Amino acid sequence: MKDEVKHPNGQRIPNGMLEDNYPRNMWWVAAYSEEVTTKPITRWLLETPLVLYRSEDGTPAALYDRCPHRWAPLSEGHVAGDKIVCPYHGMEFNSGGHCTKAPTQTMMPKTAQIPSYPVREAGAFIWIWMGDPEAIEDGPPDVTYQTDPGWSFLTGYMEVAANWVLIRENVMDLTHIAFLHKNTFKQDDWITAPDTYMEGETVCYEQEFDLAPLSPLFCAGMGLPEDKPIKRVQKGRMPSLAISFSDWNVHDPNPEEGARSDFIMRGCHIVTPSTRGHTHYWWGAAFDVPEISDDVAEKTKTSVVAAFDEDKDLLQKLQANVAADPRGLDFLEVTLGADGAGVKVRQILNKKLKAEGRALS
Amino acid sequence: MKDEVKHPNGQRIPNGMLEDNYPRNMWWVAAYSEEVTTKPITRWLLETPLVLYRSEDGTPAALYDRCPHRWAPLSEGHVAGDKIVCPYHGMEFNSGGHCTKAPTQTMMPKTAQIPSYPVREAGAFIWIWMGDPEAIEDGPPDVTYQTDPGWSFLTGYMEVAANWVLIRENVMDLTHIAFLHKNTFKQDDWITAPDTYMEGETVCYEQEFDLAPLSPLFCAGMGLPEDKPIKRVQKGRMPSLAISFSDWNVHDPNPEEGARSDFIMRGCHIVTPSTRGHTHYWWGAAFDVPEISDDVAEKTKTSVVAAFDEDKDLLQKLQANVAADPRGLDFLEVTLGADGAGVKVRQILNKKLKAEGRALS
Amino acid sequence: MKDEVKHPNGQRIPNGMLEDNYPRNMWWVAAYSEEVTTKPITRWLLETPLVLYRSEDGTPAALYDRCPHRWAPLSEGHVAGDKIVCPYHGMEFNSGGHCTKAPTQTMMPKTAQIPSYPVREAGAFIWIWMGDPEAIEDGPPDVTYQTDPGWSFLTGYMEVAANWVLIRENVMDLTHIAFLHKNTFKQDDWITAPDTYMEGETVCYEQEFDLAPLSPLFCAGMGLPEDKPIKRVQKGRMPSLAISFSDWNVHDPNPEEGARSDFIMRGCHIVTPSTRGHTHYWWGAAFDVPEISDDVAEKTKTSVVAAFDEDKDLLQKLQANVAADPRGLDFLEVTLGADGAGVKVRQILNKKLKAEGRALS
Repeated sequence: MKDEVKHPNGQRIPNGMLEDNYPRNMWWVAAYSEEVTTKPITRWLLETPLVLYRSEDGTPAALYDRCPHRWAPLSEGHVAGDKIVCPYHGMEFNSGGHCTKAPTQTMMPKTAQIPSYPVREAGAFIWIWMGDPEAIEDGPPDVTYQTDPGWSFLTGYMEVAANWVLIRENVMDLTHIAFLHKNTFKQDDWITAPDTYMEGETVCYEQEFDLAPLSPLFCAGMGLPEDKPIKRVQKGRMPSLAISFSDWNVHDPNPEEGARSDFIMRGCHIVTPSTRGHTHYWWGAAFDVPEISDDVAEKTKTSVVAAFDEDKDLLQKLQANVAADPRGLDFLEVTLGADGAGVKVRQILNKKLKAEGRALS
Repeated sequence: MKDEVKHPNGQRIPNGMLEDNYPRNMWWVAAYSEEVTTKPITRWLLETPLVLYRSEDGTPAALYDRCPHRWAPLSEGHVAGDKIVCPYHGMEFNSGGHCTKAPTQTMMPKTAQIPSYPVREAGAFIWIWMGDPEAIEDGPPDVTYQTDPGWSFLTGYMEVAANWVLIRENVMDLTHIAFLHKNTFKQDDWITAPDTYMEGETVCYEQEFDLAPLSPLFCAGMGLPEDKPIKRVQKGRMPSLAISFSDWNVHDPNPEEGARSDFIMRGCHIVTPSTRGHTHYWWGAAFDVPEISDDVAEKTKTSVVAAFDEDKDLLQKLQANVAADPRGLDFLEVTLGADGAGVKVRQILNKKLKAEGRALS
Repeated sequence: MKDEVKHPNGQRIPNGMLEDNYPRNMWWVAAYSEEVTTKPITRWLLETPLVLYRSEDGTPAALYDRCPHRWAPLSEGHVAGDKIVCPYHGMEFNSGGHCTKAPTQTMMPKTAQIPSYPVREAGAFIWIWMGDPEAIEDGPPDVTYQTDPGWSFLTGYMEVAANWVLIRENVMDLTHIAFLHKNTFKQDDWITAPDTYMEGETVCYEQEFDLAPLSPLFCAGMGLPEDKPIKRVQKGRMPSLAISFSDWNVHDPNPEEGARSDFIMRGCHIVTPSTRGHTHYWWGAAFDVPEISDDVAEKTKTSVVAAFDEDKDLLQKLQANVAADPRGLDFLEVTLGADGAGVKVRQILNKKLKAEGRALS
């Protein structure tokens, strides 16, 4: 079952709502760095229950959240030194998942071991590798700008009751802004498809826009008035299925005296499959402006969340409909020119699944 | 799977709780006429998600509620002229389900088409045909009395978490009134089975009752005192699995001077399968009295709803029990003489399913 | 399906979370005696919907909660004499499940019969036999102490969203007290495994403890101060999978003048499978002290419930995790020395299932 993914309707590219459609041999985001402490938390990633915690020396760890004795969730336990202690009968485990103590007996149960997962910290996040550790070649994608003092990084989290690919495709085709977000983004000029291309394994798109007022979502962050015509170049990059960026490169042709004329707003979209049909979604909106005030940050966050709630609401309804519909995935799916980046997403996904022995055929 | 319906226990008539047990080649009620406007609504009918709306010229339309591009629910979009516009990327569709515009490109995606369904307005309702359009021979059943100024038509809607056949059988065997509704209908004389017969494809029952007080549910609507002995003839008709009537033909042998001696209360029971195990239920209570006051209407409605809530509550518990029970439909089902009309319902249902290639064997 | 229970991972003993893992040929508790009156109640036991009621002469009865006519739940009806009356069309049934009246007709439907189940009253409970009545050899286990005036019997009920075996194993291995209940029981000396043995079909454990303060949960009931070192012998007995006892035999080596030196607190743990994955759990805490005040009883009950809520919370999380995990039961399970009694539980369970033709292999 796990090894076979059905491909409805004979379409050329795999549908974005297939179940069990996430590669394992890649870095996914597990949590914000600051969420993971010596107080264990439980989290479902890739349909697997995990406990995330830090040893008392600060080293993060990720284990399968099930004690091998009587299956209690370790996340209900506590950290002691560099061990996590099961809440039920006090068995202790190191970050490799090996049992180091069974309080009721002197003999250690040698076989008592649970899966552990490599984790790395990068940017604002802890990343996890849930596939074959031997397949690790590089670290997580470069997200150093997130902690760069030259940037202001705003971020938020949503749990979305929709397949992760729906979100990934949503953020790789921003021609929906003029329709779905017409009352929030108010950027109504983006209605033609951008150029798309690959840079190595990175999916890219790029598009230049004529003078037009900038979306009010980003004006405050750049210190620009909402009605001023500016030029902009939209550049998107998806270095990994787990994360993509959308850069709003803004050029003000008539800056106020002494003011900057060029800004970047770097959107960031991070998705990780959770339980079936549910996705962790972390968004970022970063300005190459170091000194954004709390007021502007709060106002920008509120506006961005209002817009992303429109995506969440639509995608959740879409997912719920398809899930309740006996017809399910057996439905026509037409691809448009504006889906250029989205199609590349599916091709990469298909290639990675094939490499893991789960071809979509 | 769809083409085969299991028939538990070798009983002679199909059980009323079989899944997927609704014919498609017939008119079902989709909505109140007044519910369907230029603001699209979503509704599940026959386990299919639909969007219902009117063009700006008032013509009603029904489409599959899924855009063929990236599957967004069209019901979240809006009507422009005689088109419905997808909320996600602005694709437009006519009432035949054909795409007429894709904003991000000049070439029209010719294959972008979704199922559309014939609709008709009759009485207070919009009716829909979800089967083979070639099989349409007649319009919906005659319900002109609903909008006849000589009648007062009271109506209400309930969503019931039970198979539609359970409701259909409930309203075709009113010997349950003396038991289930003893504190609401208070019509305790109906405890023997009526005569049942067919008029063409219409299931009928008829029964005369001796002098007895009329159910207080209907006294106010007829302007009769609650304790006065009257005669009545109960006549039931089910012209279609979608709708049935129960006429309370009332004769007052001693009318007040100058007052009428004969009245009709026409009960009306409309059911349409929704999602699996859920049914749309529209009820009507009409008096052949044009001048019913708002007070009397409101009081009558409240009493009727109280009684129908007793049916809803019982049928929902019944459905929930069978759904949770591993034994499911594998249970004895005994048919009584009072089930005469109900058995005819099942025979018609079976015949229609057979005609659609889904025999119950 | 019913006849085959899968045994994951090739482990030597069957896992405690297997579905459909309850024997039928044994006495299970159905309800508190006082819950069952002439007002019928519905209850799921062994994944079967039942109606429990008493005839007007006080005799308890248990029937399948489905009328054989149109499947209404009899528990919504009422008792008349020694019959239960269906709420829908007034059919009457005796305690053997035979129809004795069908109001709408003179001929009795001879085939209209539903399963009935033998019930017995013992202690504070009504017990039920849901298997083959021919297999009944003895009555329910001896629980006369529950109604013995020499004892004070405190009891409570919880519905637990976990497999009944998880609770059974929990209460047969109390080495979890020092960990899971460290803030409630505060009995931190029980961290080694007790001796376990069989007395006939009864699983037993026994363990002596050195001088130590007694758990504050039981001090009030025995009239002992919380910090006084006492000796105790823990004795456990499981005479049936449905019920087990844990006796806290307490010896105060330095009693106050004229005071008792020896006390028993008899814990009692009763489980009955309900719907799939849900268990009825009745607990008892009895002191061989006749005169416990309402205040002490209330305080003890509150403390005991706080502790048992810790078990309930952990087991429910465990069950929910395994249910949501695609890996399910396919996970390592390591057995420790302290599981001696729990392993005997599984062996007895396996033996009983085998005797009913449902081997775990």
